[in-house]
Amino acid sequence: MKVLAIDPGYGRCGIAVVEKENGKEILIYSSCVETPATSEFPERLAIVADECARLLREYKPGALVLEKLYITKNQKTAMRVAEVRGALISAAARAGVPISEYTPSEVKAAVTGNGRADKHAVTKILHALVKIEKEIKHDDEYDAIAIAVTHLARVRH
Amino acid sequence: MKVLAIDPGYGRCGIAVVEKENGKEILIYSSCVETPATSEFPERLAIVADECARLLREYKPGALVLEKLYITKNQKTAMRVAEVRGALISAAARAGVPISEYTPSEVKAAVTGNGRADKHAVTKILHALVKIEKEIKHDDEYDAIAIAVTHLARVRH
Repeated sequence: MKVLAIDPGYGRCGIAVVEKENGKEILIYSSCVETPATSEFPERLAIVADECARLLREYKPGALVLEKLYITKNQKTAMRVAEVRGALISAAARAGVPISEYTPSEVKAAVTGNGRADKHAVTKILHALVKIEKEIKHDDEYDAIAIAVTHLARVRH
Repeated sequence: MKVLAIDPGYGRCGIAVVEKENGKEILIYSSCVETPATSEFPERLAIVADECARLLREYKPGALVLEKLYITKNQKTAMRVAEVRGALISAAARAGVPISEYTPSEVKAAVTGNGRADKHAVTKILHALVKIEKEIKHDDEYDAIAIAVTHLARVRH
């Protein structure tokens, strides 16, 4: 079971491909896609969507897993992030890949057992749970890895 | 100047292609895409996005024009509609077609001069402004025509 997990964003977007083999999660790929703040929103969205489409082709994951966020302080940002999510959902639907979504507190609870865990606690547990053989440079990558782990813990293999 | 205007939705989605020729708007195409309520959201989103991609190829519009909605009572529905918008923006960006967005009150104000005009007033004025030679079956089509008219009134030709 291999999943492509994305923490959607149009400025920075965390991406991870995680595989579960014999009960152990292995990080296959991770990155943080950054888009130029000087570009128009549709261009930034297209950069993220194209990268998602490329990874769907390259890794052929069994699921696309996204973080969903319904309630937020900044309504306009939330809408833009939802638009990015829609572009990713569309790319996965086109590739015939099923989509699952989890809220931030579902992710924290699944990884640490505590829906209000801080970033440091999540990162520490991820290194214990997942075989990570590369240096992780961006927090957004950890976010994506956590989303992948959440899904892999929930589904039957 | 030809535009593809869409009133985004995942249950019903109004679509119109309107062309401005010698100062007169002509309705080239309109439809209301309906998706099965029994389908999963990603499938419904893909139906709408694929239809948008098809119309971009067929009519080669100079712009994709969307209604944007930031504030609403139902946050979850608003997010789902934003996701549809993102899939459409992604399709247009992929086709190299620029995107414009207008709020419902901008559309009403542009068409009727009154940001709080009712549906009946908007429909009546649309028939005066636009050459419409087909029977319009769905209100959603009028919404899309109004969005197109708003954009055509704003841009220089």
